[in-house]
Amino acid sequence: MHRTTRSPMMQTLVNSGMGIAPFFKVTVFEQEHFQGKCQEFTSECCNIHECGLDIIRSIRVESGAWVGFEHHDFQGQQFILERGEYPHWDAYSGSLSYHVERLMSLRPIYCASSLSQSHMSSRMMIFERENFMGRSVELCDDYPSLQAMGWSMPEVGSMHVQCGAFVCYQFPGYRGQQYIMECERHSGDYQHWKNWGSHCQTPQIQSIRRIQH
Amino acid sequence: MHRTTRSPMMQTLVNSGMGIAPFFKVTVFEQEHFQGKCQEFTSECCNIHECGLDIIRSIRVESGAWVGFEHHDFQGQQFILERGEYPHWDAYSGSLSYHVERLMSLRPIYCASSLSQSHMSSRMMIFERENFMGRSVELCDDYPSLQAMGWSMPEVGSMHVQCGAFVCYQFPGYRGQQYIMECERHSGDYQHWKNWGSHCQTPQIQSIRRIQH
Repeated sequence: MHRTTRSPMMQTLVNSGMGIAPFFKVTVFEQEHFQGKCQEFTSECCNIHECGLDIIRSIRVESGAWVGFEHHDFQGQQFILERGEYPHWDAYSGSLSYHVERLMSLRPIYCASSLSQSHMSSRMMIFERENFMGRSVELCDDYPSLQAMGWSMPEVGSMHVQCGAFVCYQFPGYRGQQYIMECERHSGDYQHWKNWGSHCQTPQIQSIRRIQH
Repeated sequence: MHRTTRSPMMQTLVNSGMGIAPFFKVTVFEQEHFQGKCQEFTSECCNIHECGLDIIRSIRVESGAWVGFEHHDFQGQQFILERGEYPHWDAYSGSLSYHVERLMSLRPIYCASSLSQSHMSSRMMIFERENFMGRSVELCDDYPSLQAMGWSMPEVGSMHVQCGAFVCYQFPGYRGQQYIMECERHSGDYQHWKNWGSHCQTPQIQSIRRIQH
């Protein structure tokens, strides 16, 4: 039983044993449905106003995994942006506790693992309590419900990302506020929910999944 | 490298080789944050008004995977409900094109595969065109971005679920309108986007994942 077929280019690279350094590319548009003034990015932008844009209303991710932020300098609510089309704000915001149509900065998620790599390239630990204390489990897959897997509470105390990148969500089924956790940031250490992002108000985490290019 | 540990009960059942018939249980509350009048369900409810409730504002899924619907008799927008806590409407609605705080019917997803089964217990085909025509691929995993896997367009023409159950989403990263696809419904055949649910307005599908208990 085969998995969905890869693009011919990727299959050739996989067969040759070459690692793939993902090429990152996203185009953002000032109007919904990919209309109006647009700008292409292949690396981070810490303030869209300085990149010649007033507002972002739709996004087309062509390559790589990105994270967008509500405020400039990568602050505020986080939005995981994987390859595909987001024709309006609701398409990339997910369900959030407050609705503010603003995306002011964005950057690639460089340490996300490649789809061609094995399962073992995304690994993290979650802990019951802050500062990596209490009961813990190791995660290397996707968990739409942590409780269905045996994690008995709707919160996580602290996390450590050993390799790759993950996105954690407040509610089951990958809903609610999103927190992107990367092995390359803070040495992969997230010892308190206040470290998960400037928008984080609670230790509530009920689903977690890997980020892969 | 081990996966997250299972609950002791599940591990014992897995070790003994027994299949697990999941026990389905959900409690719904008339107020947010699990307050007010509540009702427990272990099987379907086609109209919450007939079950003694005025409204549902928070949900606690204790066992099994469920789907909630905007209207009675399992019509309207669909909401996948996996084990965990949903303290208010935003927590289970995800990001939707229209906001209406209503959940009027719900039922178990009986054919969702068990977490203790192998990968091969959830399988479906997606087709480029209606009526199972055009290019196709077989899916048996989770795809936060179909385009990252080589599916070149943001739409799907038709689908056939061979076993298990999947939830399909309008946008990448499991966002937007949700469509629950089950092998036991319509013989697993979904030949046109109009068959995906009474709320479906478009063939746009950009992420798909398995539903597992």
